[in-house]
Amino acid sequence: MGIVEVIIIVLFGVFVRLSSSTTAIFTTAYTLYQDMDVMMLIGFGFLMAFSKSFSWSAVTYTFFINALVIQLYILLNGFWQRAVIDGFYSSNYYIYINEQTLAYALHASASMFVCMGAFIGRVGPLELLIVALVHIFLYTVNEVICIYKIQAFDVGGGMTVHTFGAYAGVTASLLFNASTRPTSKPRSNYFSNLFALIGALFVWMYFPSFNFGYGYVQGTGGAQYSQTQVLTNTVISLTASCLGTFVTSAYLKEKFTLSHILNASISGGVVMAAVGGIIIHPGAAITIGFLIGIVATASLHFLTPFLEKKFGLYDTCGVHSTFGLPGLLGGILSAIAAASYAYPSAYDAYALSSAKLAFYDVLVATPYKQGGLQIAATFTSLGFGIAVGIVGGILVRFVQDFGPNEIFNDGVYF
Amino acid sequence: MGIVEVIIIVLFGVFVRLSSSTTAIFTTAYTLYQDMDVMMLIGFGFLMAFSKSFSWSAVTYTFFINALVIQLYILLNGFWQRAVIDGFYSSNYYIYINEQTLAYALHASASMFVCMGAFIGRVGPLELLIVALVHIFLYTVNEVICIYKIQAFDVGGGMTVHTFGAYAGVTASLLFNASTRPTSKPRSNYFSNLFALIGALFVWMYFPSFNFGYGYVQGTGGAQYSQTQVLTNTVISLTASCLGTFVTSAYLKEKFTLSHILNASISGGVVMAAVGGIIIHPGAAITIGFLIGIVATASLHFLTPFLEKKFGLYDTCGVHSTFGLPGLLGGILSAIAAASYAYPSAYDAYALSSAKLAFYDVLVATPYKQGGLQIAATFTSLGFGIAVGIVGGILVRFVQDFGPNEIFNDGVYF
Amino acid sequence: MGIVEVIIIVLFGVFVRLSSSTTAIFTTAYTLYQDMDVMMLIGFGFLMAFSKSFSWSAVTYTFFINALVIQLYILLNGFWQRAVIDGFYSSNYYIYINEQTLAYALHASASMFVCMGAFIGRVGPLELLIVALVHIFLYTVNEVICIYKIQAFDVGGGMTVHTFGAYAGVTASLLFNASTRPTSKPRSNYFSNLFALIGALFVWMYFPSFNFGYGYVQGTGGAQYSQTQVLTNTVISLTASCLGTFVTSAYLKEKFTLSHILNASISGGVVMAAVGGIIIHPGAAITIGFLIGIVATASLHFLTPFLEKKFGLYDTCGVHSTFGLPGLLGGILSAIAAASYAYPSAYDAYALSSAKLAFYDVLVATPYKQGGLQIAATFTSLGFGIAVGIVGGILVRFVQDFGPNEIFNDGVYF
Repeated sequence: MGIVEVIIIVLFGVFVRLSSSTTAIFTTAYTLYQDMDVMMLIGFGFLMAFSKSFSWSAVTYTFFINALVIQLYILLNGFWQRAVIDGFYSSNYYIYINEQTLAYALHASASMFVCMGAFIGRVGPLELLIVALVHIFLYTVNEVICIYKIQAFDVGGGMTVHTFGAYAGVTASLLFNASTRPTSKPRSNYFSNLFALIGALFVWMYFPSFNFGYGYVQGTGGAQYSQTQVLTNTVISLTASCLGTFVTSAYLKEKFTLSHILNASISGGVVMAAVGGIIIHPGAAITIGFLIGIVATASLHFLTPFLEKKFGLYDTCGVHSTFGLPGLLGGILSAIAAASYAYPSAYDAYALSSAKLAFYDVLVATPYKQGGLQIAATFTSLGFGIAVGIVGGILVRFVQDFGPNEIFNDGVYF
Repeated sequence: MGIVEVIIIVLFGVFVRLSSSTTAIFTTAYTLYQDMDVMMLIGFGFLMAFSKSFSWSAVTYTFFINALVIQLYILLNGFWQRAVIDGFYSSNYYIYINEQTLAYALHASASMFVCMGAFIGRVGPLELLIVALVHIFLYTVNEVICIYKIQAFDVGGGMTVHTFGAYAGVTASLLFNASTRPTSKPRSNYFSNLFALIGALFVWMYFPSFNFGYGYVQGTGGAQYSQTQVLTNTVISLTASCLGTFVTSAYLKEKFTLSHILNASISGGVVMAAVGGIIIHPGAAITIGFLIGIVATASLHFLTPFLEKKFGLYDTCGVHSTFGLPGLLGGILSAIAAASYAYPSAYDAYALSSAKLAFYDVLVATPYKQGGLQIAATFTSLGFGIAVGIVGGILVRFVQDFGPNEIFNDGVYF
Repeated sequence: MGIVEVIIIVLFGVFVRLSSSTTAIFTTAYTLYQDMDVMMLIGFGFLMAFSKSFSWSAVTYTFFINALVIQLYILLNGFWQRAVIDGFYSSNYYIYINEQTLAYALHASASMFVCMGAFIGRVGPLELLIVALVHIFLYTVNEVICIYKIQAFDVGGGMTVHTFGAYAGVTASLLFNASTRPTSKPRSNYFSNLFALIGALFVWMYFPSFNFGYGYVQGTGGAQYSQTQVLTNTVISLTASCLGTFVTSAYLKEKFTLSHILNASISGGVVMAAVGGIIIHPGAAITIGFLIGIVATASLHFLTPFLEKKFGLYDTCGVHSTFGLPGLLGGILSAIAAASYAYPSAYDAYALSSAKLAFYDVLVATPYKQGGLQIAATFTSLGFGIAVGIVGGILVRFVQDFGPNEIFNDGVYF
């Protein structure tokens, strides 16, 4: 890791420069950055710390991976922007950064944490470092392709963050050495679950900020998403997915299951990441949120154990149900929502006038084409995610020599 | 709960639309919304989790109740605004929402959490759902009456949130079945109290944001409260109530009592909720805060056990001392502060010129009348709160069949 | 403490008035205030709560000391501003406060918490009160001298907060009665360390806000620091110090040491406090951050036990390594950075144009002189800090009668 850092430092010295400063960047981008910062380190960190046998690992690995991803994102995003979009020439030699760049970088962190959630507890810091390097390398390619090349609408990273990250993690988990297959569930206790609740609540609370963290100057012509639309849709959807989770969890077991509440509640934010910048009906947001809460809970209850039994897929935090499916469904819904603008008469005039939709002109001009682009970006992200899983999972096999006693046990590294 | 949610979804589809977007709403209302969001779920959630036997219930019930109240507030506030103030006609058919609406909705959540604090641990999710439905129904009526009809100055909801919520909870607690009378104190341990400290600190820290969360466009003509006045008064008052609590707690027992610190420290925010938008002397804020810290601590020490012994009033979190009394006193002080503008010569010129007071013209024109309106709104809120307690408490009797082993024990539902 | 508070209340009534209100203050200063507020109470409070035998003390003492320091800062800063800079005359009779004043006050709190960290667990509330009174009295003098008289560039308080606080704490710790010398390490357990991780992460996350919290209207002519420069440099430096800490910790022991991660990770924020407003190369920020992470970790590992053995210096939280050394080095680096503007040709044109440097004209005009002023302010802060330690440490000897069983044990006061 020390060597990686020295290389990063040299590249920073040569290529990275500060962007000049404006107050608007501070009052919006920095506020969102800080919300997302807490969502990353307290949110994802403690959500993954639900087991009392690897809480320290979950939180501290989240901490150093976040630091590494921020630095690498700055360099690699700058590189791919030029390689894929702008071309290299002397006048765009430098990568300029400001608070907004940092906010974008946290989307990359989140994607890596979703990925980690699938196999946390079964890997040490070296294995994580390898997956993180593969992940950030392909994350930055996929992001540039989906957002700037395909020009999909993906304000909160439903495709580039959640679909990409979840399928990367699941695929890697499948490919790990057999010696790291858990023989028992991770042990959790009363207090470690309370820490996980702190994590889950911070993820839930700051998801609207995350979904809008990307809302600036992407894709065509630097247009903006409507902040009221993205933030309000996400909040409404999250409240509905929370209620959908409680209802379904109580129905399935006659009692609440804490792991459902910890995970499925936040699926309403995941599903809004792609579609939340397109739909303009709060009624659609609440419906989608409620249904995805039910789907995610049912998936945690039925699908996760089934996949484990049938395919040997160990998914420590159930990221497939919480991030994978809702991310995919959100991508498909975003295509349907975009295509629905082919029938503007289906929208009442109040709904249309009430929201100043981002890229509204694009959508009304080419609804079916944009729908196709949404699908394209969704499956591009899925494909790149699986690629990360394959490359990362195979590379990890060479270094991974966990014994059965070392799984779900942070005593090995502390 | 599933049925309630389906009804809500249908009503959202028909009536709710997004409001158009402005940056100012984002940089102010959304920032305040997020502060209040953390105050609700981490703050109130973990403050009520002080007992290691029902920490999970406290946090998770807070979570789903918050989601439900946000959705219902949007619908019911829209309804009562039209029923009481605007009238129904076709051009105001839709309820428009944005980030500001969400911030208002969290005042309703807070009021319900204050209410819950009186009997948390003695009810299950069904009983909570019943109380929450009664609460939000009358909360939205009372709010419209106090703020728009009576036109009281209640920037932080001292009357509508705290007085209303505390007396609702206390009254309901009195009316619950005898079988839910606790025979012992809730058990807490070292770590569950540390979690409660996290909760208490987040409530304390974000109370200024909460008190200003309402500061926009209410009452006559959309005038604004002065943010510097509300925020600074609340911070000063909270520091003083913190110190008043520590001094009194040490005096009463020769040691600090953690439950005093957890609860009475925040009374300085409660008392400023009504009066913090009217007084312009930091000296008044610090004096009131220090005294209310002493009063709330003494009340927790003497009054809470007395009421329990004498009237069988079980008040799990001592909300009567922390929110009830300070809310009531704040309402009365707000009347005195309003009336004091009948003597503007008592204010030095520097004080008057230094604060651009909200509704200053109203106050100087009709100080005694406004004082009367403050009293009226305080007792209207008290009355509606007690009504919630009576209706909710009686309805709960029909479903509540807790046995002695189920009190303060979240194993029943997890 | 009650008597102190009554005196404060009287002085508030006579001297303190609200400043008139602007929206800009809210969207910037109040947002920063709230970030710093969480950093103080959750961050420093729980960082010091790493031991399960005095977690309650650490958090609750942080709470009341913070309240006291805010109030005293307002009065004493107002006093020294007039005594040292403006002079006393009738037209500046009143101290005007707003959200910005509160943000400044939290720098004083932070300095006191750094100081406390050196001896937390070995003192009771009375001893802390004595040190806090001495500390805030000299903190406010030193701040006015360094910032307004010497006119050093110290945007985040690298000199006035960290150097001052750390050497105050270390000196006081040396002078305490022999009876308070710990005979064993504070006991920590799995969960108390998780609480400490929450604290450390909040300090790490909000350090950029802290470093910019001071960024308004100080020194000559009310110029501003560049927010992008300060915030981005601090974030980059923190990510690098986090990685430097992990690398060094793993190298030193072949495993990670949690106390290294808890403390040394944040040294990248401390070192940027003075120099982060002067350097304009992100490459410099990442290099300094990485090196200070290594230095702080090595210092915790080698220097702290050495000083304890050789000089009987008990430093509970290792503040000398985390805040003392990085603060001092940051001050010296800030002098070098200022002096480097004597060779503007060493900067490429892109770097110079990309950052609108605060006080840039000052720096280019008098680079060596400003370098000297930076050194002067660093050692002035060091001297005043040591003075606090001597006076506070000696005064505490008169009241301190801790027995061996009372060290690292909050049962004495709860």
